[in-house]
Amino acid sequence: MTDTPPVADLVDQHCHGVLRAELGLATFEAQLSSAASGPAPGTTFFDTQTGFSVRRWCPPLLDLEAHCAPARYLARRRELGVVETTRRLLRATGVATYLVDTGLPGDLTGPAEIASAAGAEAREIVRLEALAEQVADTSGTADTFLVNLAEAVHAASASAVAFTSVAGALHGPARNPRPPGPGEVRTAAGRWLAGREAERRAARSGAGDRRTGCGPPADPVLLGHLLWSAVACGLPLQLHLGTADPMGLAGFAAATAGLGTDLVLLHSYPHHRRAAQLAGAHPHVYADLGPALARTGARADAVLAEALELAPFGKLLFSTGARALPELHVVGARQFREALGRVLGGWVADGAWSRTDAARVAAMIGSGNARRVYRLDC
Amino acid sequence: MTDTPPVADLVDQHCHGVLRAELGLATFEAQLSSAASGPAPGTTFFDTQTGFSVRRWCPPLLDLEAHCAPARYLARRRELGVVETTRRLLRATGVATYLVDTGLPGDLTGPAEIASAAGAEAREIVRLEALAEQVADTSGTADTFLVNLAEAVHAASASAVAFTSVAGALHGPARNPRPPGPGEVRTAAGRWLAGREAERRAARSGAGDRRTGCGPPADPVLLGHLLWSAVACGLPLQLHLGTADPMGLAGFAAATAGLGTDLVLLHSYPHHRRAAQLAGAHPHVYADLGPALARTGARADAVLAEALELAPFGKLLFSTGARALPELHVVGARQFREALGRVLGGWVADGAWSRTDAARVAAMIGSGNARRVYRLDC
Amino acid sequence: MTDTPPVADLVDQHCHGVLRAELGLATFEAQLSSAASGPAPGTTFFDTQTGFSVRRWCPPLLDLEAHCAPARYLARRRELGVVETTRRLLRATGVATYLVDTGLPGDLTGPAEIASAAGAEAREIVRLEALAEQVADTSGTADTFLVNLAEAVHAASASAVAFTSVAGALHGPARNPRPPGPGEVRTAAGRWLAGREAERRAARSGAGDRRTGCGPPADPVLLGHLLWSAVACGLPLQLHLGTADPMGLAGFAAATAGLGTDLVLLHSYPHHRRAAQLAGAHPHVYADLGPALARTGARADAVLAEALELAPFGKLLFSTGARALPELHVVGARQFREALGRVLGGWVADGAWSRTDAARVAAMIGSGNARRVYRLDC
Repeated sequence: MTDTPPVADLVDQHCHGVLRAELGLATFEAQLSSAASGPAPGTTFFDTQTGFSVRRWCPPLLDLEAHCAPARYLARRRELGVVETTRRLLRATGVATYLVDTGLPGDLTGPAEIASAAGAEAREIVRLEALAEQVADTSGTADTFLVNLAEAVHAASASAVAFTSVAGALHGPARNPRPPGPGEVRTAAGRWLAGREAERRAARSGAGDRRTGCGPPADPVLLGHLLWSAVACGLPLQLHLGTADPMGLAGFAAATAGLGTDLVLLHSYPHHRRAAQLAGAHPHVYADLGPALARTGARADAVLAEALELAPFGKLLFSTGARALPELHVVGARQFREALGRVLGGWVADGAWSRTDAARVAAMIGSGNARRVYRLDC
Repeated sequence: MTDTPPVADLVDQHCHGVLRAELGLATFEAQLSSAASGPAPGTTFFDTQTGFSVRRWCPPLLDLEAHCAPARYLARRRELGVVETTRRLLRATGVATYLVDTGLPGDLTGPAEIASAAGAEAREIVRLEALAEQVADTSGTADTFLVNLAEAVHAASASAVAFTSVAGALHGPARNPRPPGPGEVRTAAGRWLAGREAERRAARSGAGDRRTGCGPPADPVLLGHLLWSAVACGLPLQLHLGTADPMGLAGFAAATAGLGTDLVLLHSYPHHRRAAQLAGAHPHVYADLGPALARTGARADAVLAEALELAPFGKLLFSTGARALPELHVVGARQFREALGRVLGGWVADGAWSRTDAARVAAMIGSGNARRVYRLDC
Repeated sequence: MTDTPPVADLVDQHCHGVLRAELGLATFEAQLSSAASGPAPGTTFFDTQTGFSVRRWCPPLLDLEAHCAPARYLARRRELGVVETTRRLLRATGVATYLVDTGLPGDLTGPAEIASAAGAEAREIVRLEALAEQVADTSGTADTFLVNLAEAVHAASASAVAFTSVAGALHGPARNPRPPGPGEVRTAAGRWLAGREAERRAARSGAGDRRTGCGPPADPVLLGHLLWSAVACGLPLQLHLGTADPMGLAGFAAATAGLGTDLVLLHSYPHHRRAAQLAGAHPHVYADLGPALARTGARADAVLAEALELAPFGKLLFSTGARALPELHVVGARQFREALGRVLGGWVADGAWSRTDAARVAAMIGSGNARRVYRLDC
């Protein structure tokens, strides 16, 4: 750990805003897991690597002992208030630039508020599905929708630093890696708009629940069109893999080679070695380290080391993937620094790497690669 | 290792009985691998992690030096006799409660004999395929079979602590996660019973080999019916994954959510990270650690650490998965304690976990989670 | 590392020849990755585990400091000349016997030249696809081709030590593990020969690019026929897995059991645990360690340890998988020795393995298993 200098000025290449409300124990606990349901009877999400990491890194930042009991931590959090807590925590991350995916629902802070609370910079990542929903809200027909969508994507590409898609990678290009034709896109768009309209009518008449029918676009053709619209703009495109095997994206990676748009694979754990392999096979494919480190706590060093096996060091990008709790920003950043120091420091101590190379690679992964890919210095 | 107190009173949540016969070198060696065939020419199953683990942990319990030659160990084993050997070995495991899957063929000891030899408690796990075969032996028609099966499952649920299925997870819900309809179940049952009857007639006339045709139920519809019959009873259901990807069970996990029946994933290696992930995503899904630790010898700590990445600590269950040799009970239990001590002890030494938390998590995985899931204290 | 004696006289069970030309920085760099395209803008393949490993192990062999800059290393390489460089590097590998896959295109040294430069022995591995292309060049009809192919395979089996196939494992038996019938083989052969002929005519008339149409056989039926022709000869058959899951070969492994031909799984990373598992399940299946160690640099010990979890120790085979650069021969051999020493030495230090066993297993994996499988001492 003492063998490599710490990375200053991290770029968190994928994160979300934090909640503005004061949180009770149960509300806080629910955010420690990405599961849709609560913990099993007799268990708690505090008993996870994420829970233990929060208890390791955060209490000292609020003047408590590391590993203190959750209830005590939450009491102190409420005592300080959400604004002061958020300020203290974000300022302890060492992140100089936040790239914020603003496409999540819920009352989360936006890039400007994060920048202000953290005393750092923040830029926006536009989520394609959320953009499509906004455009649909003001478009009558499929043709209008498609024209407006093209304009919205183009406009977003002027201010945002990247696009992201949470469903596209799983359902779009995995089925067909080529751009869908205009006819099938119009049909798919029409079907989705009609579903939304039916839903809205049902909601107005009280006959149905707004959540039962449509939601964000899920049709493979429509998702494929969203991805290819983003590819046409040239901004980097971040693709959530969820639990899917990154090899499902091999066809899309091949089809987008040489077009000038970089693909960044998010959420590849436990397939991070495959994501790293794919990043080594294609010049325009990059691999995110985010949640794989932030969520695995004491094991982050082992997971990082696996990602470093086949990925060229210029193709790995730090992120926290944090959302809702500033604690998750702290955990993501601390785990990354700690893991990077241990892994690279160990290799330097063994003589496998030179100290100079280790420091250089640490800076690349922590910020340099992201600055280049997202053109942050332009 | 000295950082965490040892787990007393383990619950082995999935194991089998041991052989009653005296064993020669070749018979013993064959049990060291789960392969259907013998070792390759010029090799021996003693040259495996399992073989080395047996030679590490067992000879001292029979008054020999660790790592002594296999022939010497077997000679001493015969000298002591199988009863005394079994007694000595089982009493050295530290297991207080054995949950015994009684569905394996062969002359293996049952729960009562294990309890007596080990000076411990033992409870039964009922294998659904074996139960179906027993019921088929006394049922004439498909209708009778299905009624008798329902009664047998209900009766078993009164005495057993869990059901298990070795083929259901691979062939049943992976194809269709929903309960099959009564009509298709009756058809599938009729087909299976007819196959059994044809086989029996052929065997009686000497025209065929009893093993060529039917065996335990393999039809996806029939297997699906067995699983859903078990789910309806509310006892935990253990599912062998074999070499299948746990994600094949994602649909079944979603379909059984909220029904009050827990699913325990067995034999997930090398997909144990995925199994852990699935256990984190669903309140009613648990992950077994058994053979993944017992079979990987000196690597058990690394495998355990991987399982601890995403699984909530309340969702992991110790087992040995041992069968036929009491040596495998010893190896499974010793490897688990050793690995747990090293992994958690290392995290305590690094400051990542508190000592109190480590001891608490060790007790949860070693016995507490199993006591809660299988209601052993009721 | 000091706990296990070094393995002398390695057998590299799968490698290729080296380039005869003097190399510039860019040509050299291109060989550090197996990617089809170059590095991403702003990155270099020197910034990979392979690049760092070359800079760790090779400069001292050319009288430079470890980890010196690539340009300096390349300058010294040119100063010494390719002949002297190759001689120095190959003689530092500790490899006593090279098994050389001669089926790669490009101006690479053959077995005799490698043997001479290295002061070692070398034997040939025949690549089935390349053999088929040679036979096709002199065969007019499908029938002639199939007769000539059978003779060529038979002739090769008299001098070569093994066959290998780079596409067969992925596209042949994964679809159908059984030998294809004579009729479909003749049809597939006819189609492939016709495609080659059309291509040749187009090339002669300048109307097309020689690379657009046919290449080596890719038809599953034809590939299946190649594999089964090799299986019929009894020589070990090496199967490249590429990025495919080894479980896709489970059917072919079962279909070839007991026929007397061993299968050796190459390039299984990141599925090396599955390959090891398959090697444990079938007496005639072996797992190669090659590129998984050679390409992962400082992580080779972790990857080796994973392969040692389920594979019987008599079923793992060392190789470098090196091609084009003698540096890759050095890296593969040094990483293997280093990793083996660290992993086994660590287990000896922990008391998990005896020192005698560790030395024995090291010798098996480094050379003994290969000598037995490839009958090198006959």
